[in-house]
Amino acid sequence: MSDFTDSLRPKQHSGLEALAHERQQSNLPIDELSTHLLGADGFLARQTKVLKVVQSEPLFSKSYQQNLSRPDRYKLGLARGKLLRRLADKHGWTPEEHETAEYLVDDVSPYMLHMGMFVTTIREQASDTQRAHWLPLIESWKIIGAYAQTELGHGSNVRGLELEARYDTKTREFVLHSPTLTASKWWNGTLGRTANHAIVVAQLLLPDAKGKYVSYGPHPFIVQVRDMKTHLPFEGIVIGDIGPKYGYASMDNAYMLFNNFRIPHSAMLSRYSSVNPDTGKYTKPEESAVVYGTLTFMRSKIIQHARLVLARAVTVAVRYTTVRRQFADRDGPSNGPELPVLDYPTVQIRILPLLATAFALHYTGLAMQEIYNSTRKEIEAGNFGSLAYMHSMSSGLKSLCTTLAADGIETCRRALGGHGFGGGSGLIQLNNDYLSKPTVEGDNWMITQQTAAYLVKKMTSTLGGAKGTAVDEIDVQFRTYLPQIRGVSEASYNILESDEALVKSFQHRATALAYRVYQARVVNKKPWTSLMIEFHKLSKAQSQSILVTKFHNALASSTDLSPATRNILWDVFRLFASYTLDADRYEFFTCGAASQAQLDALPARVNEIMTKIRPHAVSLVDAWKIPDYLLDSALGRYDGRVYEDLFNRAHRLNPLNKLTVNPNYWEDEIIKDGEDIKAIRAKL
Amino acid sequence: MSDFTDSLRPKQHSGLEALAHERQQSNLPIDELSTHLLGADGFLARQTKVLKVVQSEPLFSKSYQQNLSRPDRYKLGLARGKLLRRLADKHGWTPEEHETAEYLVDDVSPYMLHMGMFVTTIREQASDTQRAHWLPLIESWKIIGAYAQTELGHGSNVRGLELEARYDTKTREFVLHSPTLTASKWWNGTLGRTANHAIVVAQLLLPDAKGKYVSYGPHPFIVQVRDMKTHLPFEGIVIGDIGPKYGYASMDNAYMLFNNFRIPHSAMLSRYSSVNPDTGKYTKPEESAVVYGTLTFMRSKIIQHARLVLARAVTVAVRYTTVRRQFADRDGPSNGPELPVLDYPTVQIRILPLLATAFALHYTGLAMQEIYNSTRKEIEAGNFGSLAYMHSMSSGLKSLCTTLAADGIETCRRALGGHGFGGGSGLIQLNNDYLSKPTVEGDNWMITQQTAAYLVKKMTSTLGGAKGTAVDEIDVQFRTYLPQIRGVSEASYNILESDEALVKSFQHRATALAYRVYQARVVNKKPWTSLMIEFHKLSKAQSQSILVTKFHNALASSTDLSPATRNILWDVFRLFASYTLDADRYEFFTCGAASQAQLDALPARVNEIMTKIRPHAVSLVDAWKIPDYLLDSALGRYDGRVYEDLFNRAHRLNPLNKLTVNPNYWEDEIIKDGEDIKAIRAKL
Repeated sequence: MSDFTDSLRPKQHSGLEALAHERQQSNLPIDELSTHLLGADGFLARQTKVLKVVQSEPLFSKSYQQNLSRPDRYKLGLARGKLLRRLADKHGWTPEEHETAEYLVDDVSPYMLHMGMFVTTIREQASDTQRAHWLPLIESWKIIGAYAQTELGHGSNVRGLELEARYDTKTREFVLHSPTLTASKWWNGTLGRTANHAIVVAQLLLPDAKGKYVSYGPHPFIVQVRDMKTHLPFEGIVIGDIGPKYGYASMDNAYMLFNNFRIPHSAMLSRYSSVNPDTGKYTKPEESAVVYGTLTFMRSKIIQHARLVLARAVTVAVRYTTVRRQFADRDGPSNGPELPVLDYPTVQIRILPLLATAFALHYTGLAMQEIYNSTRKEIEAGNFGSLAYMHSMSSGLKSLCTTLAADGIETCRRALGGHGFGGGSGLIQLNNDYLSKPTVEGDNWMITQQTAAYLVKKMTSTLGGAKGTAVDEIDVQFRTYLPQIRGVSEASYNILESDEALVKSFQHRATALAYRVYQARVVNKKPWTSLMIEFHKLSKAQSQSILVTKFHNALASSTDLSPATRNILWDVFRLFASYTLDADRYEFFTCGAASQAQLDALPARVNEIMTKIRPHAVSLVDAWKIPDYLLDSALGRYDGRVYEDLFNRAHRLNPLNKLTVNPNYWEDEIIKDGEDIKAIRAKL
Repeated sequence: MSDFTDSLRPKQHSGLEALAHERQQSNLPIDELSTHLLGADGFLARQTKVLKVVQSEPLFSKSYQQNLSRPDRYKLGLARGKLLRRLADKHGWTPEEHETAEYLVDDVSPYMLHMGMFVTTIREQASDTQRAHWLPLIESWKIIGAYAQTELGHGSNVRGLELEARYDTKTREFVLHSPTLTASKWWNGTLGRTANHAIVVAQLLLPDAKGKYVSYGPHPFIVQVRDMKTHLPFEGIVIGDIGPKYGYASMDNAYMLFNNFRIPHSAMLSRYSSVNPDTGKYTKPEESAVVYGTLTFMRSKIIQHARLVLARAVTVAVRYTTVRRQFADRDGPSNGPELPVLDYPTVQIRILPLLATAFALHYTGLAMQEIYNSTRKEIEAGNFGSLAYMHSMSSGLKSLCTTLAADGIETCRRALGGHGFGGGSGLIQLNNDYLSKPTVEGDNWMITQQTAAYLVKKMTSTLGGAKGTAVDEIDVQFRTYLPQIRGVSEASYNILESDEALVKSFQHRATALAYRVYQARVVNKKPWTSLMIEFHKLSKAQSQSILVTKFHNALASSTDLSPATRNILWDVFRLFASYTLDADRYEFFTCGAASQAQLDALPARVNEIMTKIRPHAVSLVDAWKIPDYLLDSALGRYDGRVYEDLFNRAHRLNPLNKLTVNPNYWEDEIIKDGEDIKAIRAKL
C-alpha cells in the first residue's frame, strides 16, 4: 500500500537524536549497572540467550494480538505454551530459561499453574511416594495440572471453603462434593479448559467414633478431573472457563463443581498430615503454619516480579517523555523550541519517583528471596521458627509492592498523554494483566492485618521486657526506637542532608505507629475490626521502612559499583525516600520522626533531587535492559522512532482499515458488500 | 445443558435477603432523593421512557460483547448507532432522549463526534450562511462528520499544529497539506472509518503584500473527506483507524493526512474570523478567547458526566460488599457468622467517601452547567467578560473531577476482591473507556496551569487594592480570607463540629495556597516552569473548595428535601469534606486552616461519620437509579443475586466452553477436531 505518506518524516528533532542526546549527557556506565542489577543470578545471560530464539518465531509476534477475540486469545496462548515447551526441549532450556521465555513472550500461559502452584504444591506437600509417582508425569507434561482452592463464595477466608472431602472407610475413598453454588471452585487458572489434573483443596471430613463426620479443615488432594483421551470432565464433575476478565485473556480461569465424586485414599497429599486408610484416623502436621509455605513462595515471587514490571512501565515513560516535546518555556522567547516534556516538574514528579521505586523494589526483592531461601531450608530441616516472621513480612510487602507497581503503571500511562491510551503505548496489556496482583495471593487490604498482628505481638513482648538476643529485625528496630518514642530520649534526624537519617526516620515512624496500635489494641482493648485502618497504615509504614532500609544498606555495602554509579544511585535512593516521606508528612510530623521545618522544605528537596537525576533518566532505564521485543511499545522503543512506529501500526498493521463501511443509518449494510446489521446481531 | 448444578443454590444468606435487609434498615426516602437529584431536568423520566425501548432490542444485549474481536466491536458499534438513530426517528426522541439511549446502551458510538463536537462546532463557529447550508445535512445524518484537531505530534499545544491551510487567491481555494508525519491528524473520533466530512483545524496561511505566506494560527474548516458513493477517501487524503486502544473499542479514532488537497473558500468557518475571498485579507475575531467555547462546553459536559460514572461504580461496590460475606468478627465467637465486607472499616474507607464524592460531583456539575449556560448567553450577546473565569474554573474542575471518577472506579473495582477482576463486575469496560477522560479535552496535569494563572492574576489585582463590586466568586473568597492569611486576624474553624467551618477551612486553604504561589511567581519572580507542581496543587485546592462549597450551599438552600433525607445528606457532605481534608492534613495544618488537635482527631471523625452512613449506603446508591441494564454487573444487580448471575455468565453464556482442547504439547492440534497451531499462527 504505497502512498504519499511513505516519504513523510517527523518534524525536526527525531526521537533517534533525542535519545542519543540523553544518553550522551549521562556519565552512568549502563552495563556496569545492568550487571549489578541483573547479572548475579544469570538473568541477563538467560535473557540474551532466550530472546534470540523467541523473537524469531512468528507465533510469538505481538503486533496483531490486540485485535483478537477472547476465545482466539486463549487458543493463541495455548499454541504459544506448546511451542515454548518444544523450544525448551529443543534447546535444553533450564526451568529458569523457560520462565524467562514466558516472561519475554508476555502472554499469560494457560500452562502457568501447571508450572507454578501445581508442581510446587506436589513438591512441598506430597509424601515421598506421591512425589515419586507424580513428579515425572508433571515434569514431562504427560499430565497437566492446576490448583483449585478459591471458591465462588470464598477467597481470603480459606477456612470457610465449602467443598467437602468426606472419607469413606469402607471403600477407602474420599467423596468430593459441592453442597452449594458458592462451593464452586472459581478463578483457578489453567483448569477451565487446559488441565486434566488439579490440586483440589477441600474440607477434610472424617468419621468420629460414632460415625458422625467432623471437619479437620481444608486439605489438598490431587485429582484427575478430565479424561486423558476425550479431555472431557468425568461424570460428576462440571468444569468450565469463567469468561472474559480485566486481563489474562489467554488464561482459562475455571469454575468446578463435584457431585459425590470419588477419589482414592492416595489422592490426599500427605507430607504433613495424613489419614489412616483403614481407620480414618487423622495425623496432624507438626506445625500448622507449614501450609503457608506455598503461599509465601508465591508472594515472594510476586515481590521480586514487581521491580521488572515497574521498570518496564518507567522505561516507556522516560523514553517517550524525552522524545515528546510540547510548549516552549513560558518565560523564554515565544518562538523558542518546544521542551521535552520530561523537563516539566509536573511530568518528573510522576515518573522519576517511580523510576526510583523500581530500584527500591529490586533490593527488597533480593532480600525477600534470601529470607525465603533460608527459611525454606530451615523448614526442610524441621525448624519452623522463622516462618511467622517471613509470613508477616511477605504479607505487608506483597501488599505495598504490588500496589506501588499497579498504581505506577497507570501513573506512567497517564503521563504519556493521549498516546498512553493507544495500543502503541505497550502499557495496556501490562496494566490489564497486572491489575490482578493487588488481589491474588491475598487481597492487599486484607493481608496487612497479618503484618500488623505480628508487629503488635512483637511490641507486646518487647515492652514486656524481652531481652536476650534479638530474634529478628523487628526486635532490633523496636529496641532501638522505643526509648525515643516513649520520651526517654529525643529524636532528631536530618532528613534533608543525611541518608542514614532518612532510614532512621522511617524506622522511627514505623515503630511509633506500632506503639500506637499496641496501645489501642493491647492496652485499651479496642475491637480488632475498629482498628483495621490503623493496621493497614502500620503495615504500610513498616513495609516502606523495609524498602528504604534495604535500598540504603544495599548501596552502603555494595562493592561492585564505580563512584559514578554509586553517586547516581544515592540520588535515586534519596528521591525514593524523600518522595515517600513527603506523601505522609503529617504522620512523620506527629510521630516526631521529622521536624516541621524539614518537612516544609521537603518538596523543594524532592525537586532538587529530581533535577539531579533528570540527565541520567534514560540511562537509568536503559540499565534495566528491557528488550524492545518485551516492551512492544512504539513510545518506549530503544531507538526513539516513536512517530514512525505509531504510524506504521496504524497505517499498515491495523486490520480494521481493510474494511470500508456504509455510514447511512437508513441502510442495513454495515460493511460495503459485506456484513449487514442482521449478520452483526447474529454474532451476539 | 442440564446438569447437577441446576439445583444448586448459594450457601445461606442470599443476596436477595441481604439487600432487602439493607433497604429495610434505612429510613431514607429513596424516590424523594432520586427526584431531587435527577428529576429537575427530566433525566429520570427520559431514562424510564428510553430504557423500555433499548433493553428489548437484541442488538443492544451486552452479554456477549466482551468476547468479540476489536473489528467486530467496531462493526457492532456502527450497527447500534444506526439502530439508535432509527429508534429516535420512530419514537420521535428529542436529542436528549437520543443521548440518554446512547448512555444506556453504553457502547461508545462511532457517530459520537458527529452528534457532539462536529455539530457543536458548526453551531458555534459557522456563519449564518454556513449554518443554513450544513445544519440540515448534519441533523438528518445525510452527511456524517468528525472533528479533526489533534495531531500525531501535537495535542495540548494547539498553536503548534502543523497541518497547513494555504490560501490560493487565484483559485479562491485553501490548500490543505501535511508537511510531515507528525502533522498527521490523530485520535479524531468517528473519522477513522465512519465519517465522510470533518471539521479540520489547520494553520491558516495567507499571503502578505509581497506574496509571502504568513501564519494566522489554527482555524477550523469543514471538509468533505470521503466520496459519498464509494466511501473511499479522496485522492490526496489518507485516512484510517489508529488501531486498538485501552478502551473505546467501538470507536474509530483516526489518522488523516493531506497532500496539497484543495477545498473551497467557503470551507473556512467564518462566524468570528474570515478571509476576504478576493484579497486574502484576514478579519480577526473580536475576542480571541471565543474559540475556547467548544472546549469549555466539552469540559462542562465531562464534569456533569463524572457523577453518574462514579455513582455507577459505587452502586456496584456498595451492593456487592453488602452481599459478600467474609470472616467472622475476630473478637466474637470463632463460629460466628461471616460479616458483610462493607462492615469492615478498610472496605468502608475505600467506598463510602466515593459514595459521598458522587454527590459532591453532582452539585458542582449543576453549578458548572448554570455558569456555562449564563456565560454562553452573554457571549451570544457579545459580552465576553465571564469567559476567562468560566474557562479557568472548568479547567481545574475537569482535572479534579475526572481524576476522582477515574481513580474512584478502580478503587471500587479493587474493593470487590477477586470478582472485581472478572467480567461480571460491570466495571471493566467502564474503567477502560473512562480512562480516556483524564487526558482528553486537556490533560489533567497540563490544564491546571490555566486555573492557577487565573488565580494568580486575581490575587495580584486583589492585593493591588481592587475594590468595588466583586466580579466573581474568587474576588469574594480572596477578600474574605486574605486578612487572616496575612496575619491581620486569626483563623479558627471548628472542622469537627461545624459544616460551615469545613467550607471555610477549604476556602482558607485555597486562598493561602494562591497567596503562596502569588508570592513565588509575582513577588519572587520564580520561573513559571519551576512552579508547575505548586500550580497543580493550587488548582486542586481551589477545585476541592468549589466542590465542598457547592455541596454545602446546595444542602443549605434546598427546599425539596424531607428532614430524614437532609440529615443523611449532611452526613454525606461531612464525609466528603472530612475525608478530603484528611488526605491533605499537612497542607491544612501549615496553612493555618485547621489546628493540630482537630487534625489529629479527624481520622476518628471520618470513621464515626462512616458508621452513621453505613446503614443508608444501599439506599443512597439506589437513589441514583442506575438500571441493571446499564450496570451490566452480576455484582451490582438490584436484586443481589450475585452468585447465580456469575455462575450463569460462566456456565451458560461463555463461548469458550464450547471448545474442547488438546493440551499435549507434542501434538499440533489445539481444538479437538479443529484448529491446529498452524491455523492459529495464520490469524496473526
